[in-house]
Amino acid sequence: MTDPDCIFCKIIAGELPSDTVYEDDLLIAFRDINPVAPTHILIVPRKHIVDNNAFSDEDAVIAGAMFLAVSKLAESEAIQDSGYRLIMNTGPDGRQEVPHMHLHLIGGKQMQHPMG
Amino acid sequence: MTDPDCIFCKIIAGELPSDTVYEDDLLIAFRDINPVAPTHILIVPRKHIVDNNAFSDEDAVIAGAMFLAVSKLAESEAIQDSGYRLIMNTGPDGRQEVPHMHLHLIGGKQMQHPMG
Repeated sequence: MTDPDCIFCKIIAGELPSDTVYEDDLLIAFRDINPVAPTHILIVPRKHIVDNNAFSDEDAVIAGAMFLAVSKLAESEAIQDSGYRLIMNTGPDGRQEVPHMHLHLIGGKQMQHPMG
Repeated sequence: MTDPDCIFCKIIAGELPSDTVYEDDLLIAFRDINPVAPTHILIVPRKHIVDNNAFSDEDAVIAGAMFLAVSKLAESEAIQDSGYRLIMNTGPDGRQEVPHMHLHLIGGKQMQHPMG
């Protein structure tokens, strides 16, 4: 369920530091070290799922936990009303940088148009 | 569970046309009428949830269904290996255009850098 070479697995295990802002049984959320906006938080399953292609039936509960964490974090970051963008990248065209599935919560400024 | 004035609820009810590419008990997926990439599909819960702020515990199963639909659609669109980006917008800073929660699946070209 973990990959010893994965930077996110090391953060989850406490072997690497992170600015953690939320955690529960299924996931951990911490600030991106290269933020693209005033709020830029990564929501990461504790389970090492490489990407959305590898997401399976048994992981469904993790997706629910991620979206619920977003609602809580939007409130604690005070971006509930101003709004925010969620992004999850897979593979080279998506520019996925860490091969451990994660959701970006980005807010505090107006997002780009067109998106993508 | 539905809003009679919502364009996505009308599509779900079959009152407006759409290029539907996937559906199950919880959601429907159809092509965006203003695509930003060769693949641009909207994955939409049948339930009228306004945005991620309104997402509640009872909706957790919907999030799981959305991510599982992404895996299936990535395969049918043949973008599993090339990659893709998922985007969900909330509120003005997120540039949410339709107030019925939906996930954009975008692929078939390289996504922008920086994102957001």
